[in-house]
Amino acid sequence: MLLKTSDQGKRLNLSSPTAMPKASTFLWNTKMMIHMNCRGFAVSQFMQPEPAKYAHAPNLEAKTFMQPEQPYFAHHAGRFCYIKDLNQNELFSIPHEPVKNPMEEFSFSAGQSDVYWLLKKNGLEIKMELSLTKNDVIELWTIKIKNNSTKERNLQLFPYFPAGYMSWMNQSGAYDDELEGIVCSSVSPYQKYQDYDKVKEYKDKTFLLAGTVPDAYEANQEAFEGEGGLNSPSAIQQGALKNGEARYETPACVMQYDLQLSAHEEREFEFVFGPAKDKTEIKRIKKEYLTESDGFSKAKKEYSDYIAEGKTCLSISTPNKKLDNFVNNWLPRQIYYHGETNRLSTDPQTRNYLQDNMGMGYIKPEVTRKAFITSISQQEFSGAMPDGILIEEGAELKYINQVPHTDHCVWLPVCLKAYLDETNDWELLHQKVAFADSDEKVSVAQHINKAMEWLLENRDERGLNFINQGDWCDPMNMVGYKGKGVSGWLSLATSYAIKVWLDICESFEIESPQGKFKAAIEGLNDSVNAYLWDGNWYARGITDDNVVFGIEKDPEGRIFLNPQAWSLLSNAADANKEKKIIKSVETELETPFGVEMLSPSFTKMREDVGRVTQKHPGSAENGSVYNHAASFYIYALYTKGYKENAYRLIDKMIPGDDLADLVQRGQLPVFIPNYYRGAYKQFPHTAGRSSQLFNTGTVHWIYRCLIDGLFGLSGEPEGLRVNPQLPDDWNEAQAVRNFRGADFHIDIIRSTAVSETTVCPPVAAL
Amino acid sequence: MLLKTSDQGKRLNLSSPTAMPKASTFLWNTKMMIHMNCRGFAVSQFMQPEPAKYAHAPNLEAKTFMQPEQPYFAHHAGRFCYIKDLNQNELFSIPHEPVKNPMEEFSFSAGQSDVYWLLKKNGLEIKMELSLTKNDVIELWTIKIKNNSTKERNLQLFPYFPAGYMSWMNQSGAYDDELEGIVCSSVSPYQKYQDYDKVKEYKDKTFLLAGTVPDAYEANQEAFEGEGGLNSPSAIQQGALKNGEARYETPACVMQYDLQLSAHEEREFEFVFGPAKDKTEIKRIKKEYLTESDGFSKAKKEYSDYIAEGKTCLSISTPNKKLDNFVNNWLPRQIYYHGETNRLSTDPQTRNYLQDNMGMGYIKPEVTRKAFITSISQQEFSGAMPDGILIEEGAELKYINQVPHTDHCVWLPVCLKAYLDETNDWELLHQKVAFADSDEKVSVAQHINKAMEWLLENRDERGLNFINQGDWCDPMNMVGYKGKGVSGWLSLATSYAIKVWLDICESFEIESPQGKFKAAIEGLNDSVNAYLWDGNWYARGITDDNVVFGIEKDPEGRIFLNPQAWSLLSNAADANKEKKIIKSVETELETPFGVEMLSPSFTKMREDVGRVTQKHPGSAENGSVYNHAASFYIYALYTKGYKENAYRLIDKMIPGDDLADLVQRGQLPVFIPNYYRGAYKQFPHTAGRSSQLFNTGTVHWIYRCLIDGLFGLSGEPEGLRVNPQLPDDWNEAQAVRNFRGADFHIDIIRSTAVSETTVCPPVAAL
Repeated sequence: MLLKTSDQGKRLNLSSPTAMPKASTFLWNTKMMIHMNCRGFAVSQFMQPEPAKYAHAPNLEAKTFMQPEQPYFAHHAGRFCYIKDLNQNELFSIPHEPVKNPMEEFSFSAGQSDVYWLLKKNGLEIKMELSLTKNDVIELWTIKIKNNSTKERNLQLFPYFPAGYMSWMNQSGAYDDELEGIVCSSVSPYQKYQDYDKVKEYKDKTFLLAGTVPDAYEANQEAFEGEGGLNSPSAIQQGALKNGEARYETPACVMQYDLQLSAHEEREFEFVFGPAKDKTEIKRIKKEYLTESDGFSKAKKEYSDYIAEGKTCLSISTPNKKLDNFVNNWLPRQIYYHGETNRLSTDPQTRNYLQDNMGMGYIKPEVTRKAFITSISQQEFSGAMPDGILIEEGAELKYINQVPHTDHCVWLPVCLKAYLDETNDWELLHQKVAFADSDEKVSVAQHINKAMEWLLENRDERGLNFINQGDWCDPMNMVGYKGKGVSGWLSLATSYAIKVWLDICESFEIESPQGKFKAAIEGLNDSVNAYLWDGNWYARGITDDNVVFGIEKDPEGRIFLNPQAWSLLSNAADANKEKKIIKSVETELETPFGVEMLSPSFTKMREDVGRVTQKHPGSAENGSVYNHAASFYIYALYTKGYKENAYRLIDKMIPGDDLADLVQRGQLPVFIPNYYRGAYKQFPHTAGRSSQLFNTGTVHWIYRCLIDGLFGLSGEPEGLRVNPQLPDDWNEAQAVRNFRGADFHIDIIRSTAVSETTVCPPVAAL
Repeated sequence: MLLKTSDQGKRLNLSSPTAMPKASTFLWNTKMMIHMNCRGFAVSQFMQPEPAKYAHAPNLEAKTFMQPEQPYFAHHAGRFCYIKDLNQNELFSIPHEPVKNPMEEFSFSAGQSDVYWLLKKNGLEIKMELSLTKNDVIELWTIKIKNNSTKERNLQLFPYFPAGYMSWMNQSGAYDDELEGIVCSSVSPYQKYQDYDKVKEYKDKTFLLAGTVPDAYEANQEAFEGEGGLNSPSAIQQGALKNGEARYETPACVMQYDLQLSAHEEREFEFVFGPAKDKTEIKRIKKEYLTESDGFSKAKKEYSDYIAEGKTCLSISTPNKKLDNFVNNWLPRQIYYHGETNRLSTDPQTRNYLQDNMGMGYIKPEVTRKAFITSISQQEFSGAMPDGILIEEGAELKYINQVPHTDHCVWLPVCLKAYLDETNDWELLHQKVAFADSDEKVSVAQHINKAMEWLLENRDERGLNFINQGDWCDPMNMVGYKGKGVSGWLSLATSYAIKVWLDICESFEIESPQGKFKAAIEGLNDSVNAYLWDGNWYARGITDDNVVFGIEKDPEGRIFLNPQAWSLLSNAADANKEKKIIKSVETELETPFGVEMLSPSFTKMREDVGRVTQKHPGSAENGSVYNHAASFYIYALYTKGYKENAYRLIDKMIPGDDLADLVQRGQLPVFIPNYYRGAYKQFPHTAGRSSQLFNTGTVHWIYRCLIDGLFGLSGEPEGLRVNPQLPDDWNEAQAVRNFRGADFHIDIIRSTAVSETTVCPPVAAL
């Protein structure tokens, strides 16, 4: 079996390194993240305060955001160990790369707070394990090797942790006797003296410490590889490492252990890998994790406890075991990751920051509360929200946050609603907060009023919202850059946001320009119906040159998912339109891997729409199954009671229906990726393939879909409302809902005994 | 023999791919450059208008300047061809990578306008050849394969030209039937719509066109490699390429040819590889180079003629054949490259631009003339020269050119002198040119007066020149960033520059504030002697905090070469000091690979000196044999008649004294690199290793050393002055000097018949 779960689903095990070569999992703490691939490749980043790497590519890598479908190559950063079987004169490597000799048994096992491989070959049983610590930017590695045979075995072990091309200014590597480890040193490249004060604080060293003193070592990548190359390094061919160093050469951390294993003997090696500022820091790390007795295992335990804090407020048991497993073990973990790390950014996009904290509201609502205040304190007095929220001193808006977007205000009430449902924290609404550009303090509620007013002011004469250089869809940057183009989606989102806000105001007796807002909702819905209804669905917007797009007669991009989803949320669509929309999405956008964001994908630049049309067809915003958009749609379906469609699309979001599905997606069901490749009709060969990116607002919305929709266990000021929307073919389901301090154990039973949803006390109490 | 010359030295042949694995050569035209490595790795760049690549690394590469000692790795961009010998079931690759199986014979042959490999294996003789064209950004490749045996041979050929990771926005690859080639398409990543107008003009396609239609192809890197990896690609193992495409996957250009070669049969394949904007452009290229009869060979001839235009004004024949070969064939070529391409930059550093054009003055003086005018037209009215000269519309100052340097004015008279010596173009001095910030037009001479005045004004109360954030030494950025630190070198350089300028003024009767300038020269020299003489050499400068550095008591960086060299040029050093300097340089700085720029190399940051101290010890400005600085020193030695030392250091600059020297430097004598690794006393293991960077102002100064010094054949207003400074152990030498339209054939003979240099008419005329 390719995939097996263990430990009540808390582990997921993959039995082949080749069937899904990009299959991976990730670990994190608040300071770092490591994306660990089943073949041994790794992408790890830490904050100082901007994201930085301690294991690099072998060439100068561009500093950029994490890329979808990141291709790997032999010299990509990774954590490997060569094993030379001297009895059989065979070289192989664990976990798989770089030698890629097949194992007799292979298992890549993704756990909640660790990753390990279990491998068997030639009578050897090998376990290679990674854990993090709670507070340090280091990796804890264990390699256990056991001789399962009855013969003595002579082996050489060569842990190989490449450091890559660290810097053109200065890079070197050498073994340090005192530290009993290899230290690769560098100076981050810079040119302006103004940057020196920052650079001098960087953790520019990368080290590999060993719990057991190695028999030999090599700190020079090229000397290690030689002509043999990575698949058969010359240094290994020659029988022993030469204790070399790297001097303005690409460094590497390679160690050698000569082992004689008697029958059934087992040996264990511990390593610590990571970045450091200086030797003092490495010494401290060595002492804490390797010298002190149990330091290593205590740290693993502490990390595991930390991850366990991200516990769910919903456990389920349903006829769909794939869903149960994902929801009970992996979905809250992914939400927790977002809430804890903010995607390893110092300037998260405002909409991401608010939605990531919406999800965190189910886990650590106190974090969410703080994030709302932080966000709101960066609002302009005009009501406008900035493109990113600065969460570190000295941070600045980077990349896409330098492009003005018009949707950020929308997310304030929308995300706040989930938080208030969960916590009933009405006091937040009255807390007084200043502005980015004014010391005047007004209540959070007044801030939101201002945000809604800003959205209403930024509309054209038709009453539709200007899009400027983008709305939720970042690369839709040329619809309205001349100042005229409008967004159909944003108009509907404004309508919905105000509706949600009015609901909140009503529940918590908050003052707002109620009449004006109610009229605005109607006005927005009317305008969208007047200008954007295309017969079977809503158009996406109107360009600067007054061209309506996202309509049936467009050869490419003729239907976009977002306006359809949000027309359901905003009530713009009447029953007739609603029916047409549901049908259109099903026929035009739904694929075996979920619902596409637009279709057909653009195959060439459309200059009045913008950059989204230049992305590869079927990738990212250009018509992939962009799960964030899909999750809005699913949420909208639940609000309107389309429980079958909603459930089907949730199910399609989680990989693993069968072997073919798994292999096509190429991803383990340990996270929801930001997209699966779309353009299903145009490029069926690649459709379904995972982006492998686990940064996505999707997870928070899917959680809301479960809480508010599928299980119908959402909060209200007065308490918990029970209103499940199980699919027709489920006759029962169980849920444990932790809500405001209490655990509700709920059995949902479809019964002919009742004609409508009926809530009964527990059987014991009957 | 590891190295052989052929074609009267115009070719240089290397017989091993492993002895000097980074050995390389380069080809260029005005729009592109390719740095071709003996193992098949390649770095190529073209201008659009900024430097761009069409063959990338397999990951997102940082956009940066060319890096010294660029490490290669298996997946680095390159041009390769796998050959499967079906009779022997053996796979190998040409020229060497990626399989790296040894050949029976290997020759990497660097020519003036081409590069080829001659290879023999298993009775096959293979030639793989690269040429460029004069005007297009394309590579012309030929693969000839000959069956030298008497048996029929069954072979498969797989040209493999990786395209790398082109873009995260959009990348794909597919075979185009009409073009008979593989086209890899991409969209350069960008995020701001303001960049779209630029991006849309980019040559974002990379293509491989074949003169012979392939039997199969693969456009998908991962599909090609499979589990086999680059050393034994799965697609080749499986017997045939699958005609695949890349859809948002890393593309590659791989073709397959199935060959049956009868005894002694030879087959030839032609390919064109390069970037293009669109299919129309590729069609045009196909037509011009592949469809039209002789298009390919005509283009090669035209390119060869173009390179031949860069002909020398000096051919020599001396007892030093290594020198002859380099000077007659390679040195003018490297100078020509600089003059033609300006290092593939749109904003060359002002000092580089002026010096590169100083060299070009010996080849195409009309280009130099234009460059002077361009430079001077960007001078500020204050006299200040900018940090870079913008030579393309829309160009802007980048990288190091955003850091203010204080030396740029110096290079105007210094470089102009060489041009005037060669051309006697006094009219240039009277040409009227405006300023960057003023329309007022004044003569070039007046511009230079202003530049000299600016240098004099930017001095402290001691009369020493402020250094600000750097002088010639870019990374010496923290000596004077607070506004007080001064540069000893720059003070001497100012003195020398004014001296040269006064000489020019005298020769050409130009008006200048002669009295003031003469006094300034004395004042500068006196100040340097008063504040910077350290007993055995001159200090490098005085920091913001009034600390003199580059002195004997400094534990690191206690002697710098530049002040010593320029104190000879400026006449600051009297005879006594001069002697001490020559001795100090010899004992403190000279190594078997040339003279180091400073010593000892800094091993840690010195915060009052700056970034130079953070570079790896022995690399670049931190104590390498930085050839540019060495060439100043050699030039200075000739001005003072130290002909033995000067000659010895020229000789040390050219690799190839013996096998050990070649292997240690790792570079072919087809160019002078910007540095050889220094820190000879600290890190002897790496000392001498070439940076492999062929962008360097060194070559122009070495040419001046030959013209003005060693052969003493420099121009004056009245004509050619003959004043050779041959080393003592040469008894004769011949030179042909092309000067102002005439060829002077000169035999230099050491004879007891004369007691001083005596010029005789040709023997025939006696």
